[in-house]
Amino acid sequence: MSIVALSGGVGGARFLRGLADVVDPAELTVIGNVGDDVEVLGLHVSPDLDSILYALAALGDEERGWGRADETWRALEEAERFGGETWFRLGDRDLGLHLVRTQALARGEPLSAVTERLARLAGVRVRLLPSTDERLRTWVETPAGPLAFQDWFVARRHADDVDGVRFEGAEQARPAPGVLEALEAARLIVIAPSNPYISVWPILAVRAIREALARRSVPVIAVSPIVGGRAVKGPADRMLTRMAGGTSPAHVAGCYEGLIDALVVDEADAGAVDGLALRVVVTKTLMVGDASRRRLAEAVLESAS
Amino acid sequence: MSIVALSGGVGGARFLRGLADVVDPAELTVIGNVGDDVEVLGLHVSPDLDSILYALAALGDEERGWGRADETWRALEEAERFGGETWFRLGDRDLGLHLVRTQALARGEPLSAVTERLARLAGVRVRLLPSTDERLRTWVETPAGPLAFQDWFVARRHADDVDGVRFEGAEQARPAPGVLEALEAARLIVIAPSNPYISVWPILAVRAIREALARRSVPVIAVSPIVGGRAVKGPADRMLTRMAGGTSPAHVAGCYEGLIDALVVDEADAGAVDGLALRVVVTKTLMVGDASRRRLAEAVLESAS
Repeated sequence: MSIVALSGGVGGARFLRGLADVVDPAELTVIGNVGDDVEVLGLHVSPDLDSILYALAALGDEERGWGRADETWRALEEAERFGGETWFRLGDRDLGLHLVRTQALARGEPLSAVTERLARLAGVRVRLLPSTDERLRTWVETPAGPLAFQDWFVARRHADDVDGVRFEGAEQARPAPGVLEALEAARLIVIAPSNPYISVWPILAVRAIREALARRSVPVIAVSPIVGGRAVKGPADRMLTRMAGGTSPAHVAGCYEGLIDALVVDEADAGAVDGLALRVVVTKTLMVGDASRRRLAEAVLESAS
Repeated sequence: MSIVALSGGVGGARFLRGLADVVDPAELTVIGNVGDDVEVLGLHVSPDLDSILYALAALGDEERGWGRADETWRALEEAERFGGETWFRLGDRDLGLHLVRTQALARGEPLSAVTERLARLAGVRVRLLPSTDERLRTWVETPAGPLAFQDWFVARRHADDVDGVRFEGAEQARPAPGVLEALEAARLIVIAPSNPYISVWPILAVRAIREALARRSVPVIAVSPIVGGRAVKGPADRMLTRMAGGTSPAHVAGCYEGLIDALVVDEADAGAVDGLALRVVVTKTLMVGDASRRRLAEAVLESAS
């Protein structure tokens, strides 16, 4: 059965690795977030697509959660010597991919075509697609004013509270080739345990993708990124508290209103699921290695069958 | 006294390091060749400017003659994995500079401004200028047809014989800001021991630079890149043999007809200087360390005084 997963980086990527272990990877299509794409040192960086690609190719740094394993930072050290920007950490191995992608984009190749080729060359059998080939950029509204996503997330270490998010270019953005076809052919759609606001919403901000989920005839199952009321990593809990009023399963589910049929939550959050108007699947969602990633993926698949 | 040197990479860069050791570097301006500039992996690479900058900043690999000392190649290995071009070797440290320069050029900064800033940030006190900010590219005519410089030099390892050289864009190219002023203010102009055809001619192909040398009121002294009839490195001897008919001091001097007042040649070539219609200075020109670089620079300065 063919599966489509919507995902951001880090936690989502980790989950996808488990999912690709328990299904035929050739039947899995991942639609990755591009709202946090950024130009660094003149290179087009797609942090979420890269985290997914690296995770699926077993090339990623599992500890750090982003970038390449066994990484070095010599180019960046020299860029610093020569006055270049260093706020966004690009490792030497990582740069190899960014150089190839940037060159391909400059030649007019769409991001989706580049991404598919890069993934194939890394030995990834899962189909990896960006949500859109067009420019779509996440902005966060903060007490300090609107901030471009990476200015907030990396440069300011997501210290500013977030009052809202918006997605520049989303109105005009069309899904990348293959995205709608994959959604239509899917027997199951999974939303990975990613930050709803800044990892999944920018995917859903592409109207045709959102509409495809809204009119679904197959189950859409979201995995909560919250464990015991807290984000495993990143600002999801702070954002949920400020923008939704809390970090319970209901607050997470509220981010996907009308778009999901079930929510997979951690055992630690099982006490707060009463009154939720959708199916709740309780399991261990913390992923700390191959076995737990697979178990979570299996729990998601079982909940759909 | 202010000195201007015209130079390519490797041998020229090595000589300049000696020259900067024996004069006040603040009084030295180097006009570097850009005919071998090339786009690699989407980056603007200026091999000769970089060899000069790295040599003057003591950052270069002296053994190899180009690129950075203590270099690694991890980004390039990954670019290869992802299908990127690897024919032109860009090391990790080297990439730091190319990234910063490419980004600056993309923002509209002229090459001369970028180059001066990069050199300053590397601690270089010599003024380093490209011959021109405009696009000027060396092509070689070979039995296999015309080849872009780096296609011939790097990709084909300069195996093809060369019947001629031409400099795309030279007709329109204006000297970079500061170049003519430096030439006019100079008390001495030196042509470094670089390949005449592919390192110095592309500089002289900028008409205003050539004219400034032709109407000089101060000595212009060229250092031959030939030792004992052979090039220390690279194809200069083969090119001289095929295009000028030999590798004697007269053949080297013929490359600069009407533009130089003296030629510095190696002791090994001293037997072949009879009948030369310009001053010949005989010394040891082989540079194998700081001391010999300095001695050669001092010999050049003495010959001008």
